[in-house]
Amino acid sequence: MELQANNPALTSWISCDPNSDFPIQNLPFGVGIGKDGKARGLSAIGDKVIDLAQLFDAGMFADCGLPTENVFDRSTLNDFIALGRSTGRKVRNRLSALLSADNAELRDNEALRSKAVLDRSEMSMLMPVKVGDYTDFYSSIEHATNVGTMFRDPDNALLPNWKWIPVGYHGRASSIVVSGTPLHRPLGQTKAPDASEPTFGPSQRVDFELEMAFITCQPNALGSRIKPADAEEHIFGMVLFNDWSARDMQVWEYVPLGPFLAKNFGSSISPWIVTLDALEPFRVQGPEQNPAPLPYLKTSGAHNFDIHLEVGIQPEGSEEKTVCRSNFKYMYWSMAQQLSHHTINGCNIGVGDMYASGTISGPTPDSYGSMLEIAWKGTKPVPMPDGTERKFIHDNDTVIMRGHCQNEQVRIGFGEVSSKLLPATEY
Amino acid sequence: MELQANNPALTSWISCDPNSDFPIQNLPFGVGIGKDGKARGLSAIGDKVIDLAQLFDAGMFADCGLPTENVFDRSTLNDFIALGRSTGRKVRNRLSALLSADNAELRDNEALRSKAVLDRSEMSMLMPVKVGDYTDFYSSIEHATNVGTMFRDPDNALLPNWKWIPVGYHGRASSIVVSGTPLHRPLGQTKAPDASEPTFGPSQRVDFELEMAFITCQPNALGSRIKPADAEEHIFGMVLFNDWSARDMQVWEYVPLGPFLAKNFGSSISPWIVTLDALEPFRVQGPEQNPAPLPYLKTSGAHNFDIHLEVGIQPEGSEEKTVCRSNFKYMYWSMAQQLSHHTINGCNIGVGDMYASGTISGPTPDSYGSMLEIAWKGTKPVPMPDGTERKFIHDNDTVIMRGHCQNEQVRIGFGEVSSKLLPATEY
Repeated sequence: MELQANNPALTSWISCDPNSDFPIQNLPFGVGIGKDGKARGLSAIGDKVIDLAQLFDAGMFADCGLPTENVFDRSTLNDFIALGRSTGRKVRNRLSALLSADNAELRDNEALRSKAVLDRSEMSMLMPVKVGDYTDFYSSIEHATNVGTMFRDPDNALLPNWKWIPVGYHGRASSIVVSGTPLHRPLGQTKAPDASEPTFGPSQRVDFELEMAFITCQPNALGSRIKPADAEEHIFGMVLFNDWSARDMQVWEYVPLGPFLAKNFGSSISPWIVTLDALEPFRVQGPEQNPAPLPYLKTSGAHNFDIHLEVGIQPEGSEEKTVCRSNFKYMYWSMAQQLSHHTINGCNIGVGDMYASGTISGPTPDSYGSMLEIAWKGTKPVPMPDGTERKFIHDNDTVIMRGHCQNEQVRIGFGEVSSKLLPATEY
Repeated sequence: MELQANNPALTSWISCDPNSDFPIQNLPFGVGIGKDGKARGLSAIGDKVIDLAQLFDAGMFADCGLPTENVFDRSTLNDFIALGRSTGRKVRNRLSALLSADNAELRDNEALRSKAVLDRSEMSMLMPVKVGDYTDFYSSIEHATNVGTMFRDPDNALLPNWKWIPVGYHGRASSIVVSGTPLHRPLGQTKAPDASEPTFGPSQRVDFELEMAFITCQPNALGSRIKPADAEEHIFGMVLFNDWSARDMQVWEYVPLGPFLAKNFGSSISPWIVTLDALEPFRVQGPEQNPAPLPYLKTSGAHNFDIHLEVGIQPEGSEEKTVCRSNFKYMYWSMAQQLSHHTINGCNIGVGDMYASGTISGPTPDSYGSMLEIAWKGTKPVPMPDGTERKFIHDNDTVIMRGHCQNEQVRIGFGEVSSKLLPATEY
């Protein structure tokens, strides 16, 4: 099916600033609650949102192959994305047509427009999906190299399996929250290198990790696999992902079974799922893979995406400082390879599952995706506009991640994931 | 509320063999599908099951504080256990009363009895809950010591964090299946110690891990914690758990982020959730903990349970051989400590989440809970009745785990988790 919705010549009867993340060529999907307290599926354009449940009830999606029940009239998109990318495409193409400058159906239907076209600022955004399982990969070679250099051996920074396996591990789905949800500094055990025993208290090294995550829409049966060439058809779209990490807890707990409490106190995502379809114009080749991946991980064509990313830290009552500018295109392992690897043993994926990339660091220090790397284990503190400095995240700092694609014709953005670190609870 | 259901003097008008796992003092909860193809909540007694949806519709649970909608008339117990242990207690006590020898309400109501009391053999059991998140602990000191001895240093077998932290990691919820579901030998990467590159193919070292799992019923809010003294009120009950593992894949992939494809091709559970209430008579002290746990993990009283466990391997068309006899009471860290640790950083638990114990090995070789330990890395193959031997699990072997508590008055059992390892799929 054609991606008419991607036509760069399209304009909408809804005005849209050229710097908006949400032109008519984007049309992401999310879930929000308006003044009426009712959750419903939404799309975004410029400063407006489109109430998809209202459009459905008005029969506007009649030719999209949707079921008779309104899949947008609920608090998650799971039932919608479960219909697969082909149905998602039809809805996005139809939405694009309805919002096109020369289409009068919605534009001139004032009654429907007043119900279905709302100010984005009036919406409280919710988690777009109920996450079943959540996996975090470790697929940036620059990040893995930095961590290996700091904690192991600069001459053998990458572990022997890293270039063979898109390394990943399971994380906690329940504590993934949407942008705007504050998190408390976690309590837990830490042990100083020279101490004989651990102590208990708030983590002193809370960090962000700049990641992106993809969301799956089409399951496979337990015991079957998804081949690299088919993998993207299982991926509905992407969000920004802040994999909050407590470094001092992590180093004490993670051997031999991996990170646990250092991660599962919370992860934050941006509310709008940008479809892989909207990202098509920004498809690029990933880095050269040497050694060549084993045959089950071999791909042909371009499977990476050119997405500009940045991270800002905003201390309470002070100016935000950008501390990182990176790009999703640096990822060594593609999403198609990650998903193929994940299922090669027959593991079954589900509708609404989330798969994060791992920290997305670039080749230069200003592109590193975590404070651990930016401040290099605390040895290079980052000066802030208010005169303070940061090795890790302070109480009441807000961490803001943004992402967008840009070419000469169009900008496709993700909005932001913004979350504040509250002090630890009393203990 | 009193546990009238535990009265060891009770007998039922449904006959029950003294060696049955399911006397009137047990009354576990599960979900099954009968000849009508309809899933519903069940309890078990002797060789019968009780259709709880039928009893609900007949008004038999009127005084149990259940909602007006039939929470048993569905394909998981999540809505039922979400009502908490106090409601679960009322239902179990009421069920106990209805099934008591001297109670005529159901016994003499032939119309209802014929619908609600069915042969267990007629039921296909399903997953009792939809699992949200799944965590696997590593809480048997004998197992951790055995693994450390084999793969690291016999003189320092336990890692420095092991006696301070109930070590755990996140696993895959989607691939947890109910007893009777066969699994395929997983495909994946392995690397021989002396090889320079990994190879791809079926795992050659598929193993079981004898575990038990608890299921949570009462959530906590993100950012809050569950104290050890409150933890058991969040635990609805327990099941047997086979944490299938591919050892050769595990050793290649697990550094630094933990096991992934070596585990997530499948885990198998027994279908009946035995309530913590039914296990009360078998509460025992756990092993002495030295060093003393940090204050947030301190418990008083007995928080372990005396549950006999065994594992059998049945080659296709041949006799079963028992390869392990262990006991849940060996666990170094209690479930109360595991759950307190899991939430000390504010991580939120959910209804239907599953938390496995880690391999339950005892002090003697005949009580080791995995083939890795029983056959000691392949150096002590186990002879089978058919003349073959086992270092790990062969294609078409069925692995069967059973568990029960026994005192002079009563036996409370779990039934079994039985699952067959099919050959790898074509590749």
